[in-house]
Amino acid sequence: MSDQTDPRVADLGFARVDVDRARRTGDAEVVYGAGKTPEQVLSILRTLHDHHPDRAVLATRLSDEALHAVEAAGATVDRVARAATLGPMPTTRGTVAVVSAGTSDAPVAAEAALTARVHGAGVDLVTDVGVAGLHRLLGVRDRLEAADVLVVVAGMEGALPSVVGGLTGVPLVAVPTSVGYGASLGGVAALLAMLNSCAPGVTVVNIDNGYGAGVFAARVARQTARPAPGAEQ
Amino acid sequence: MSDQTDPRVADLGFARVDVDRARRTGDAEVVYGAGKTPEQVLSILRTLHDHHPDRAVLATRLSDEALHAVEAAGATVDRVARAATLGPMPTTRGTVAVVSAGTSDAPVAAEAALTARVHGAGVDLVTDVGVAGLHRLLGVRDRLEAADVLVVVAGMEGALPSVVGGLTGVPLVAVPTSVGYGASLGGVAALLAMLNSCAPGVTVVNIDNGYGAGVFAARVARQTARPAPGAEQ
Amino acid sequence: MSDQTDPRVADLGFARVDVDRARRTGDAEVVYGAGKTPEQVLSILRTLHDHHPDRAVLATRLSDEALHAVEAAGATVDRVARAATLGPMPTTRGTVAVVSAGTSDAPVAAEAALTARVHGAGVDLVTDVGVAGLHRLLGVRDRLEAADVLVVVAGMEGALPSVVGGLTGVPLVAVPTSVGYGASLGGVAALLAMLNSCAPGVTVVNIDNGYGAGVFAARVARQTARPAPGAEQ
Amino acid sequence: MSDQTDPRVADLGFARVDVDRARRTGDAEVVYGAGKTPEQVLSILRTLHDHHPDRAVLATRLSDEALHAVEAAGATVDRVARAATLGPMPTTRGTVAVVSAGTSDAPVAAEAALTARVHGAGVDLVTDVGVAGLHRLLGVRDRLEAADVLVVVAGMEGALPSVVGGLTGVPLVAVPTSVGYGASLGGVAALLAMLNSCAPGVTVVNIDNGYGAGVFAARVARQTARPAPGAEQ
Amino acid sequence: MSDQTDPRVADLGFARVDVDRARRTGDAEVVYGAGKTPEQVLSILRTLHDHHPDRAVLATRLSDEALHAVEAAGATVDRVARAATLGPMPTTRGTVAVVSAGTSDAPVAAEAALTARVHGAGVDLVTDVGVAGLHRLLGVRDRLEAADVLVVVAGMEGALPSVVGGLTGVPLVAVPTSVGYGASLGGVAALLAMLNSCAPGVTVVNIDNGYGAGVFAARVARQTARPAPGAEQ
Amino acid sequence: MSDQTDPRVADLGFARVDVDRARRTGDAEVVYGAGKTPEQVLSILRTLHDHHPDRAVLATRLSDEALHAVEAAGATVDRVARAATLGPMPTTRGTVAVVSAGTSDAPVAAEAALTARVHGAGVDLVTDVGVAGLHRLLGVRDRLEAADVLVVVAGMEGALPSVVGGLTGVPLVAVPTSVGYGASLGGVAALLAMLNSCAPGVTVVNIDNGYGAGVFAARVARQTARPAPGAEQ
Amino acid sequence: MSDQTDPRVADLGFARVDVDRARRTGDAEVVYGAGKTPEQVLSILRTLHDHHPDRAVLATRLSDEALHAVEAAGATVDRVARAATLGPMPTTRGTVAVVSAGTSDAPVAAEAALTARVHGAGVDLVTDVGVAGLHRLLGVRDRLEAADVLVVVAGMEGALPSVVGGLTGVPLVAVPTSVGYGASLGGVAALLAMLNSCAPGVTVVNIDNGYGAGVFAARVARQTARPAPGAEQ
Amino acid sequence: MSDQTDPRVADLGFARVDVDRARRTGDAEVVYGAGKTPEQVLSILRTLHDHHPDRAVLATRLSDEALHAVEAAGATVDRVARAATLGPMPTTRGTVAVVSAGTSDAPVAAEAALTARVHGAGVDLVTDVGVAGLHRLLGVRDRLEAADVLVVVAGMEGALPSVVGGLTGVPLVAVPTSVGYGASLGGVAALLAMLNSCAPGVTVVNIDNGYGAGVFAARVARQTARPAPGAEQ
Repeated sequence: MSDQTDPRVADLGFARVDVDRARRTGDAEVVYGAGKTPEQVLSILRTLHDHHPDRAVLATRLSDEALHAVEAAGATVDRVARAATLGPMPTTRGTVAVVSAGTSDAPVAAEAALTARVHGAGVDLVTDVGVAGLHRLLGVRDRLEAADVLVVVAGMEGALPSVVGGLTGVPLVAVPTSVGYGASLGGVAALLAMLNSCAPGVTVVNIDNGYGAGVFAARVARQTARPAPGAEQ
Repeated sequence: MSDQTDPRVADLGFARVDVDRARRTGDAEVVYGAGKTPEQVLSILRTLHDHHPDRAVLATRLSDEALHAVEAAGATVDRVARAATLGPMPTTRGTVAVVSAGTSDAPVAAEAALTARVHGAGVDLVTDVGVAGLHRLLGVRDRLEAADVLVVVAGMEGALPSVVGGLTGVPLVAVPTSVGYGASLGGVAALLAMLNSCAPGVTVVNIDNGYGAGVFAARVARQTARPAPGAEQ
Repeated sequence: MSDQTDPRVADLGFARVDVDRARRTGDAEVVYGAGKTPEQVLSILRTLHDHHPDRAVLATRLSDEALHAVEAAGATVDRVARAATLGPMPTTRGTVAVVSAGTSDAPVAAEAALTARVHGAGVDLVTDVGVAGLHRLLGVRDRLEAADVLVVVAGMEGALPSVVGGLTGVPLVAVPTSVGYGASLGGVAALLAMLNSCAPGVTVVNIDNGYGAGVFAARVARQTARPAPGAEQ
Repeated sequence: MSDQTDPRVADLGFARVDVDRARRTGDAEVVYGAGKTPEQVLSILRTLHDHHPDRAVLATRLSDEALHAVEAAGATVDRVARAATLGPMPTTRGTVAVVSAGTSDAPVAAEAALTARVHGAGVDLVTDVGVAGLHRLLGVRDRLEAADVLVVVAGMEGALPSVVGGLTGVPLVAVPTSVGYGASLGGVAALLAMLNSCAPGVTVVNIDNGYGAGVFAARVARQTARPAPGAEQ
Repeated sequence: MSDQTDPRVADLGFARVDVDRARRTGDAEVVYGAGKTPEQVLSILRTLHDHHPDRAVLATRLSDEALHAVEAAGATVDRVARAATLGPMPTTRGTVAVVSAGTSDAPVAAEAALTARVHGAGVDLVTDVGVAGLHRLLGVRDRLEAADVLVVVAGMEGALPSVVGGLTGVPLVAVPTSVGYGASLGGVAALLAMLNSCAPGVTVVNIDNGYGAGVFAARVARQTARPAPGAEQ
Repeated sequence: MSDQTDPRVADLGFARVDVDRARRTGDAEVVYGAGKTPEQVLSILRTLHDHHPDRAVLATRLSDEALHAVEAAGATVDRVARAATLGPMPTTRGTVAVVSAGTSDAPVAAEAALTARVHGAGVDLVTDVGVAGLHRLLGVRDRLEAADVLVVVAGMEGALPSVVGGLTGVPLVAVPTSVGYGASLGGVAALLAMLNSCAPGVTVVNIDNGYGAGVFAARVARQTARPAPGAEQ
Repeated sequence: MSDQTDPRVADLGFARVDVDRARRTGDAEVVYGAGKTPEQVLSILRTLHDHHPDRAVLATRLSDEALHAVEAAGATVDRVARAATLGPMPTTRGTVAVVSAGTSDAPVAAEAALTARVHGAGVDLVTDVGVAGLHRLLGVRDRLEAADVLVVVAGMEGALPSVVGGLTGVPLVAVPTSVGYGASLGGVAALLAMLNSCAPGVTVVNIDNGYGAGVFAARVARQTARPAPGAEQ
Repeated sequence: MSDQTDPRVADLGFARVDVDRARRTGDAEVVYGAGKTPEQVLSILRTLHDHHPDRAVLATRLSDEALHAVEAAGATVDRVARAATLGPMPTTRGTVAVVSAGTSDAPVAAEAALTARVHGAGVDLVTDVGVAGLHRLLGVRDRLEAADVLVVVAGMEGALPSVVGGLTGVPLVAVPTSVGYGASLGGVAALLAMLNSCAPGVTVVNIDNGYGAGVFAARVARQTARPAPGAEQ
């Protein structure tokens, strides 16, 4: 009756882990590493792994120390995404294309890509196709069309989702990043641009929230009726 | 060679209509009625209908005068959504559940619902399930789970998407509305709340943008591999 | 006649302590530790204790060094709240339920709870009942109803006060926290959400201001005509 | 099973009235008149009255037309508050003192006072005690101390709650108003001032939200163990 | 010695016209029509014309009444730009290409174009080349390259300058417009996007400031060493 | 003819000091120490002293290192104000009363006081008279009335200037400070409150700008026709 | 004992007039006309006149109807300032120079000038000396130097106070106006510019607050020890 | 066909360098050093140099370490601008005058100057001509007039562009800097002021964006038909 005996919660003292989420929503709880010690990250990650041994669980926003700690404990580390997984990757259904504008947007794009993969979608990562060099974007139109859902990552003026959204009708999730300075206001400029996109059917997540975009995109991709593409991360 | 002879554009003098969009993105151009005269709305709507006689075309944000004018010309009018369609509705694939918090959010919810329907998805409209009366929301969980994608509409504090997103793993698009006063800042409070949702996998569109949410949701629903539900608007 | 001889003020050189406040408002002055050295914190805390030997006095927002210093000097330390008390706790009247959404909100909730207790109210601390997992919140409805006043602590989208306020008519003080990133704007998103709550009778304090909420709640609880509950912190 | 047969909801077609709220939270639903026609206001007010014949129900933010319509139908009208009640006032318990700074703040103060009275508290209305004329405020200290809870209403710089909060330990709810121009930013300046009050134990509601403050204050006052004061509105 | 006798100023009672500006900066004063009566607009326009009989003088932001009044008095009216000129157009040097994204941006684009022409530059007006339909923009690259300076006008997400700035190295002035709703914040979203453009060499003017962009662009174009193009408005 | 030979400027290589300002405006240039090395501060301070040997010159916003360096070089240091002077204090005319709300406001108040004194006014420093303890403020009314101009310093809700401005008609300059957290927005809340003061005749300077308030106040005080008070710092 | 018998307050039913302010602060209450009917304005103005028959009392922010009503009742009307006075102007002491940038700033400048005059200072009004035409400003330096205090009024970029403050050491009060559009944000741009002035000794009042600047400036000017100038309005 | 073989891109692993930009827009890619290691900066700089051996390539926003590293590798370092160039400077055409207000604005001005020079324009650097000392600005009018385009750099209130824009008709690019504190809001105050300049023909770039202003200005200057001035940096 008390929380300590509720099987839906794993109480680690410093945190209470929702081990019932996968049953409720289809996807397991994730370790949000910001502000946690390496020991705490590892402890939660192992707890989640124990409850979900058959599919990878995820930890994001990890410090160098936390990345080292979980790697030493057997986790697979993605240094660009600053994230790690423990357990076997699930089989995939559908494809998420993660498209990013500039080199500085790479960590957020990598977080989105890894998250989508952990949540059961195939991923096609398309980088450095910013709007100031359209030829590269136009060169990957086939890859955009081949996806079931797009995650488009951009900082500064955040124009890329509008351009991509004009090229294709694939459902599109835009991720503003905090890349920029001065009037970028920590990513607010890109966020506002994406919310005001003139291309129909663009949705948006919080600044730098590659994780949220990845979860959403995987859910969409997994529903697809299209024949499975070969593309996987 | 000049624009006047470009078959992808219909030049009405006061506006140049993109009649190529359906070929490019799968969905036809839509009449955004704000700031247009009833005559202009009607003229564009007819032009779109001429290019797409086999499926309904849509006009949104219509004044009373414009609603009257297009209705007189044979369009079907949705007075709550302040929108109209011309031509036969398409067959549907997949289901969009449009969920709204309060009575004042009804126009935005209706715009989202009509848009999703025009773009080829079935629609289940669930109204008045605000978070201050949880029993009603909990009573419709089955309808939420039955949908391929959710559009959740709320003003004021914008809490509904977080609560819904904790109940189900169905992909969720949140629509903040400008309902409120004072510190609601014209809908910015609800927008910020939705962008910061603690439920994973929530995406957001611009304030009062039922149209954008509807387009996006229809695109997701049309891809579904799930067996067709009976629900249609 | 000069300030130095005003018995209502204790002049410590670096600060002038209002030792008359308890007579004027019923509650003693409190040490706000931010920006003060451990020596200053300790000196003020002892001065307040000398003037109010019969009931605990409080110091909040303490650094690790200040926590260590006051503990060594005999104070009771609450490391989660980053606060300390000196002197015997008062008897309690009425009950404040402090309800928090996520693990990261714990320090603010603990500050509110300790403050309410020091100010003479019983406290029931209810943690980790965020809106993305409604079952846990619904499981504690009896505890909410049993309180004379609620303090509801949440960051990110700040939705919890609206949901709680729809479940019960107990007076409710909402505390936004700075937990979040990007468009949370340092807690402003949660603050705005709480100010726009659709549940009637929600009041709000400053971001991370557990102390202010605790003082207010204790004042309300102490007035109660309800029979004393057993619950104390 | 359908909403139409749910006894907790009265479906008027244009609105679905929550007639179960009093059972759930102790206080009945209220008609928020902004954006509603006089006919709609009257219809909802009568519906609420039919479900709660033994105590007054309330309509706020009424247009001149709506005030006229409900008055003609037997409601009691408060033209300063732009509000009306239908049915007998409840007996009172405890006292809410509603304190306002300037003449322009009178409508919000009146809305708070009427709301508190409808919700079962006695009310003492103290007007025109702005901080630029302290003698008047100091002259009413006894009335402040006699209350169980204070509602303090002010626009422009919003300083009154801090001054009142330094004079007394009675629980205090601050209401910023939109009175002002230029850098008052529609009441945001007063709102921010109140959130940052240096007096401990000040809580705040949305700009111009006299209703919310009144509900909250009545709930606090009704719990009081203090002997009933004579003061009623 | 008094202002009345200063030949650099024409005192009309209700306004003091700077008739020395052309000598000082090369360009005559302009009538800013907002907030002025038709009589005032006409009076100032005639005064400027009297001092500069050999080249057109300009009035902007005119009401319908003012447009009618100055037209009746012999001025040439541009109804899209809501502006008028009096006197012969100057010969041109260099070319300004005014590029706009959507139909709603037309008035600002027209104001920029007319202003540039009045200030002595040839103008090439390129409309409806928004980023959601790239083919049209790519189809006019030659016209962009042929210009000495570009004025790029866009509302909503304001992405067009970044895309154009990636296609060509012609100096580019971006003009955000107030076209949009909700999170466009009256044009602030487009303004921020343009200030954060990832394309190098983009400069920006105030929201809806077609006039300022036109003056600036004409000054740049008039300096050109390139052979005169044939294009004129 | 070159700047190097302009006697109105002293070129130190890393900075060009305006040694003509005293002739032009009556007050010498001041060293703004933020971002300067101790050596740079000392060099500029000495240069100003060389040009104005008969009256003290001022350096503000000094680091600990810079305070140490200038003290070693013979300057008089004010550690609370984080400022220093070099040279003899001028005789005074008129009195500036510097009034501050809380202990944390002391550095800004001290900067204002020292600046006023250096600029030739007598100073009366009145500390710790925040609005939450009115008795102390009321106890110093005579000192307020005795001044020729008031500088009122407060952070958090910034209410003190309004209360003081209601007690006396002495010209009043308000200085908001960055003291506070959360919704104080780095002092913006106090700034807005002061700009919206309901007391007539309150003027405001930038957040934490004790220097600017001191210069202004000294200029006003020096003009006074009132007989010289005894009060000096 | 009740307010009705307090001789310091004149209760007109719709407003309570502070007829004690002149005794307390030296200056009488003023009628703020915004939101008041012509009858209310006239009634308050007459009440103030009855209590202060020997010196003019002031009403500001009057509608056309109110201006007409008070003029018919014998008041002297200033149509540019949208203000009126009743009673004889006081003798003057000292001089306020009111300096404005553009024609659109005239109403605010006129309000400041009339207010200063009513409060007992001589006034020198200097108009149309915006920074884009420096020659005019430089031509009036003698008038600036001759004043005891300056009120500098400007909208748009609000640069004039900085330029004036660099030319003279006379105390300077800056008044931002709401003149502008787009990124002027209703006068916030000018307000921020003035608060950040690089000229020392600039103080600022609220946007469009000519009245506040006038009161403050008159208080400063009246203290002057300088010989009386001839200049009066 | 893969990116690896696209000759328009040089893939360094950690970054993909656009070596085609000079062909497309006339100007080569530039190294933006913020967030890059010294090794990365050097590697990209060398790559750009290899592709453009005949003209200098540029790296900006370099740390002390990066400045040291590139200098050791043969680059020419500008420590004020925190930038470096590699390769021979191009011959110049036209002149950019870079004008700055205060000493603290020097780094941004230096970045603009070096950028303009690298992009092929002559540069005249005019420093320390802030509006609070007009005599210095008026003393350099000839240098302003001699330029083909002006870059005007200022922080705090950002008034300098308006004053310069009133003195001359030379095209003017304004650069706000983050110099200031409190209500300067990190440069937003200066940015807003410049966007609202009352001088016609002022354009603006992002806060601290000396690079962007330099690129734009060089493009304008290189087009000039005016005879080549002698001035070079």
